[in-house]
Amino acid sequence: MTMKPTIPKGTRDFSSIDLAKRNFIFDTIKNNFQLFGFEPIETPSFENSSTLMGKYGEEGDRLIFKILNSGDFLRKVNDDLYQERDSKKMTSKISEKALRYDLTVPFARYVVQHQNDIVFPFKRYQIQPVWRADRPQKGRFREFFQCDADVVGSDSLWQEVEFVQLYDAVFSDLGLRDTVIKLNNRKILAGIADIIGAKERLIDFTVALDKLDKIGIDGVLKEMRNKDISTSALDKLMPLFDLKGSNKEKLASLKNMLGESEEGTKGVDELAFVMEQIENLGLRTSRLKLDLTLARGLNYYTGAIFEIEANGVEMGSIGGGGRYDDLTSIFGLKNMSGVGISFGLDRIFLVMEELDLFKNAPNPRPQALFINFGENEASHVMKSVKILRDKGLRVEMFPSASKLKKQMNYANSKQIPFVVLVGDQEIANEIFKLKNMTTGEQFTCNQEELIRLIGS
Amino acid sequence: MTMKPTIPKGTRDFSSIDLAKRNFIFDTIKNNFQLFGFEPIETPSFENSSTLMGKYGEEGDRLIFKILNSGDFLRKVNDDLYQERDSKKMTSKISEKALRYDLTVPFARYVVQHQNDIVFPFKRYQIQPVWRADRPQKGRFREFFQCDADVVGSDSLWQEVEFVQLYDAVFSDLGLRDTVIKLNNRKILAGIADIIGAKERLIDFTVALDKLDKIGIDGVLKEMRNKDISTSALDKLMPLFDLKGSNKEKLASLKNMLGESEEGTKGVDELAFVMEQIENLGLRTSRLKLDLTLARGLNYYTGAIFEIEANGVEMGSIGGGGRYDDLTSIFGLKNMSGVGISFGLDRIFLVMEELDLFKNAPNPRPQALFINFGENEASHVMKSVKILRDKGLRVEMFPSASKLKKQMNYANSKQIPFVVLVGDQEIANEIFKLKNMTTGEQFTCNQEELIRLIGS
Repeated sequence: MTMKPTIPKGTRDFSSIDLAKRNFIFDTIKNNFQLFGFEPIETPSFENSSTLMGKYGEEGDRLIFKILNSGDFLRKVNDDLYQERDSKKMTSKISEKALRYDLTVPFARYVVQHQNDIVFPFKRYQIQPVWRADRPQKGRFREFFQCDADVVGSDSLWQEVEFVQLYDAVFSDLGLRDTVIKLNNRKILAGIADIIGAKERLIDFTVALDKLDKIGIDGVLKEMRNKDISTSALDKLMPLFDLKGSNKEKLASLKNMLGESEEGTKGVDELAFVMEQIENLGLRTSRLKLDLTLARGLNYYTGAIFEIEANGVEMGSIGGGGRYDDLTSIFGLKNMSGVGISFGLDRIFLVMEELDLFKNAPNPRPQALFINFGENEASHVMKSVKILRDKGLRVEMFPSASKLKKQMNYANSKQIPFVVLVGDQEIANEIFKLKNMTTGEQFTCNQEELIRLIGS
Repeated sequence: MTMKPTIPKGTRDFSSIDLAKRNFIFDTIKNNFQLFGFEPIETPSFENSSTLMGKYGEEGDRLIFKILNSGDFLRKVNDDLYQERDSKKMTSKISEKALRYDLTVPFARYVVQHQNDIVFPFKRYQIQPVWRADRPQKGRFREFFQCDADVVGSDSLWQEVEFVQLYDAVFSDLGLRDTVIKLNNRKILAGIADIIGAKERLIDFTVALDKLDKIGIDGVLKEMRNKDISTSALDKLMPLFDLKGSNKEKLASLKNMLGESEEGTKGVDELAFVMEQIENLGLRTSRLKLDLTLARGLNYYTGAIFEIEANGVEMGSIGGGGRYDDLTSIFGLKNMSGVGISFGLDRIFLVMEELDLFKNAPNPRPQALFINFGENEASHVMKSVKILRDKGLRVEMFPSASKLKKQMNYANSKQIPFVVLVGDQEIANEIFKLKNMTTGEQFTCNQEELIRLIGS
């Protein structure tokens, strides 16, 4: 006996049961993307290496899967380089293509490449797999899907408003109630850093602030002092820890505090606009929360920053995004402000499993199995099978006239809800015996009733 | 200005217009797979090289995309091998994973790996991309989707009957009428070769027979003589070229001719069963045609052989498949008879373009654009936008208060069928001005009517 085959670590096979659940999430997201006017695009699984390399930092470059050139790939390596025997230096000579690492860089490439065919503002969504040579661990895979929506070519804050609504719509449709949509603005963080005289220390400052939940005010202040942020600066910071009341009241205090920073004030105004409009429009089941400690993607985002937290399950962020100003400039197209969000599919999946929210996920399994009693009966039955399929019902006949028990076991194992039995007598009387596999009830019915019962 | 970025040759970007068409084909196939009781599975994009290599012949091995190992990949190459500087020998040392080349081998791997969780007969479908380092040309890509359905674990001929019905259902739903479903059986070819005493020359014989359309009877006979098939053998072959009448009559002559070959007789019986049942059940728009020259996948198929030809467009095969006896034995699981078919997506796409059959493909583009006249109007309008989306309508508001002309151009370019204009007056009167972008007509209506008009 040969060893059972396996798949590479960090990858997964998906059965129809897995896919029914995953597609429930994908379809819910897709449906809402479309309701909000986003259009799908798809890009190739691999890009030219030059498109991807250098876009994700040194660590990212290392984690990109490279594709070996076809044929005699060593031919392009010159003798000196070959003598060096340096994997890193040799890579670009023997590999010219690489697997997509995220959807953002291919999207930027797409926008620049097709800029003359695109109508701006361009609202696109993209749901495709990406690959990373990361160390696999619970909930982290080497092949996984990303679900992104972005708008480029407009700096209107209405986009931010819509993304809050979009998150709310998706999570409400999925049955994930009380999801927290955390909102911040990079300009506010910059403004605070400005006020306390630590403008060039923005990152240190936000890294410390980010730990507020874990180490408390004193801990944060201590860490900042260790980073040489002055005591007088820290005094100015104190009101931050004392923000009270509604989002609106917090914003008022913040505006007051940041009055001297132009950038900070702009950040507060932007955030206030989004919050006000959302208050005006209402959310179905989510809560929008001002979170000044939110510092996701700070090297990248220039305005709004989003992060999503599920209610009742410890899972970390299940989505996020933000406003960026210069995504496409890496490919030579400047002044394309954009804003985008993404959904963390695998984590959403885990949260929904834990909350038992897949009960209502549609499963396209067969709705009825017709028992096969032999060639004559089968010939007769297949006519009904055809009629039912034409009516949009998913039905099948057991392919061979095996023992009844085996056929019933098949229906049971596949969780097929109805079994139809047609023998000589039923053929003669033009009737069907129908068994409900859940309740055990049996019915005798005609063709019309059969359609109705199986379809119900 | 930087050079515009590009994508690797043989790959494609898909816009929303492309995807609407492609998804029409995918969804039609998927829907019918499910009606026929097939369940989806998905497998990883890359497999261990050992799973794929050696399964597709030498040419196939060459065309498989290999993934370079991460990190210091040269470490696993020993000095002697490195000195040889032989790309082919080095490949297995620096690459342990490879991109999926088709869906069949990963399916066989899946069945063997998960055999204890699978209910047999296992009816699975799979629609995923595959990758081949082939020379790109018209209609041939390095990344393309395959759509396969297979049943393993049953040798019942009802499966063959169902696959003919399935092909008919899909092509009828796509609007491809009079599609020819060509059917043959490898056992018949083997029987003929047997009768003419050229059993071990089955391939030579069928290669010659396959050219009947192009070179005529005399050409075929000449080619066979050149292959040292004897004149007395060729005499026995003559009735083959003289098969007349309906499929049924042809089968009768064939049965007569192959009476002395057990295998050939079995082949005729199998084919007759499928044809008879299909005659009994009827086809919607396709034609089933006995084609003895059909010799597709002869090294692989053991029973039925299918091939699909579109009507009215020269495109070659747009689908095919057959019965195989031993797919999973490459991974150590024996005696798993199976039968499967596939759809040639890219060719079906080209045929449908040529016949202009995408007119009715649903396109999830926005159904209405709300004009943005400024912050107050926008705040008001966004409430309607929300109501319409809650009703399942795909609508959007232009994100900024740009000039009306620019906003109208946006709607035009995106082929959005309705534009909604709401200014001070409309707000005061709680009405909407609706413009049909196709006819130019304008309506004034209330919220209820707006929903009805846009949704109609």
